[in-house]
Amino acid sequence: MMHYLDLIGTVIFAVTGALAAGRKHLDIFGVVVVAVATALGGGTIRDVTLGSLPVFWVSDPTYIIVVVVAALATVVVARFMRLPDGLLNVADAFGLAVFTVIGTERALAADAGPLVAVLMGMATGVAGGMIRDVLTGEVPLILRREIYATASLCGAAVFVALTAFCPGWCVHAFISVVVTLGLRLAAIKWDLSLPRFFPKGTSDADR
Amino acid sequence: MMHYLDLIGTVIFAVTGALAAGRKHLDIFGVVVVAVATALGGGTIRDVTLGSLPVFWVSDPTYIIVVVVAALATVVVARFMRLPDGLLNVADAFGLAVFTVIGTERALAADAGPLVAVLMGMATGVAGGMIRDVLTGEVPLILRREIYATASLCGAAVFVALTAFCPGWCVHAFISVVVTLGLRLAAIKWDLSLPRFFPKGTSDADR
Amino acid sequence: MMHYLDLIGTVIFAVTGALAAGRKHLDIFGVVVVAVATALGGGTIRDVTLGSLPVFWVSDPTYIIVVVVAALATVVVARFMRLPDGLLNVADAFGLAVFTVIGTERALAADAGPLVAVLMGMATGVAGGMIRDVLTGEVPLILRREIYATASLCGAAVFVALTAFCPGWCVHAFISVVVTLGLRLAAIKWDLSLPRFFPKGTSDADR
Repeated sequence: MMHYLDLIGTVIFAVTGALAAGRKHLDIFGVVVVAVATALGGGTIRDVTLGSLPVFWVSDPTYIIVVVVAALATVVVARFMRLPDGLLNVADAFGLAVFTVIGTERALAADAGPLVAVLMGMATGVAGGMIRDVLTGEVPLILRREIYATASLCGAAVFVALTAFCPGWCVHAFISVVVTLGLRLAAIKWDLSLPRFFPKGTSDADR
Repeated sequence: MMHYLDLIGTVIFAVTGALAAGRKHLDIFGVVVVAVATALGGGTIRDVTLGSLPVFWVSDPTYIIVVVVAALATVVVARFMRLPDGLLNVADAFGLAVFTVIGTERALAADAGPLVAVLMGMATGVAGGMIRDVLTGEVPLILRREIYATASLCGAAVFVALTAFCPGWCVHAFISVVVTLGLRLAAIKWDLSLPRFFPKGTSDADR
Repeated sequence: MMHYLDLIGTVIFAVTGALAAGRKHLDIFGVVVVAVATALGGGTIRDVTLGSLPVFWVSDPTYIIVVVVAALATVVVARFMRLPDGLLNVADAFGLAVFTVIGTERALAADAGPLVAVLMGMATGVAGGMIRDVLTGEVPLILRREIYATASLCGAAVFVALTAFCPGWCVHAFISVVVTLGLRLAAIKWDLSLPRFFPKGTSDADR
């Protein structure tokens, strides 16, 4: 089931990549490149740092096919149907939630400690979106004001805590996805943010 | 022979890195840093994701020497001779073609499937140029309008197809380099581009 | 002792990351993310390219704890005390010096040749700062005019030379840190720079 969850997250991030590329009017091929980097980036960093090489998309080409098909489908749909403006951010929230759980689970499966597992879940969740934003010349979502990485952190921490107290991961994964997704969607809807950091000496004009 | 081809590609990308750094008037050392990152970046990503560690330039320091010498030679030549304006793009096309073939061949040699080999060839070919453009603050060539990654994709696909039908790779490599190079040079000369992606609702002013 | 030196470098880079994030008024969590990427980025690239996987912070979670505590402490201190303007650059010089030595030593310990060891020391030293500058939208220190990577190069070369002629590394590490730090601090104080690269045909206005 983790495999299917992973494919779902991959499709979602491929769609967000294609949408972001569409905003910049890249050509068909640029769209596919951004979708591939967005959807496979987080998992690649996860596999490389954990040392499970070759990385997942080298051992299982299904991922590449899925990403390319999802990106092309997004292009076709967006050509003929006006997609809602907030779609990219909402889809990104789903991808964030799913990839956070998978990153955390893979780290625990590789015998990483709880702290490393949480960091790995967060890195897997946020890396794809960061790569997408850098490639398309946007300020990375993670560095904007709303709660983003915090949602991923909470989801990962919940997953690690649940796994520590009872075995199995199916229900844990569901709860963890709901926590991350709920926090992130609430942050988008009500513009929630953590207090910002103003070093002493900052002028009031910056606030 | 693949080894020599690899060194040629490395020299070419080192030269493009040095030229790009020259446009930004970096100091001698910044030129070397950009040349190293450009020339060794693509192969590093290839080796890491395929899991052939340590990466090629750790096992064989020839690459580092070759890059540093090529970068310094570029500085000396460009100091005393006016280089043609389009040289960077044309040299980049040669590097793209050579690294695409090598990336594809290494992936096939590591028992990757055809789809993975094509993606790996493309990633090896385009990564160096992307790193160069990001470091020197240019919009990556891959995200501009002309055909770029598409040329790499076609070259890699031709190499994989030829290898599937008859053994050996020497002639295949040559044909594949010619395909990538031809497509890319044609795109530079006649400003060829694929259709761009305009999601429904895009104003006409953006076109 | 190398372990403690590594922790010191990690703390220093975490502080520079938190300070840079403070300049951009990120939220508490963004500060931690930038600090983590700055402090663990260089070593991650070093471990991955050398093939010593999983990377150091997966095997030893102390690093993550140290980075998070250092980042939060920086936020608290900077909230109540005006920190001197040049602190970020000076702290960065210390981190550069320490990480250069550690990167060089680890590469030699992994049986890399002298040239690879120098490059690895430099990459470990400069990568964290580059990641920090890219994440916070600054022009990377390494691409500005002052001597930066050159200082790291000299420190790494000194370490390799000393190790070649006599065993042990404790005194070598100290001398190498002093060389890198001295060069970099002198460059900051007197605005030292290497000659820049002006390709023939560059207009005088650019100088």
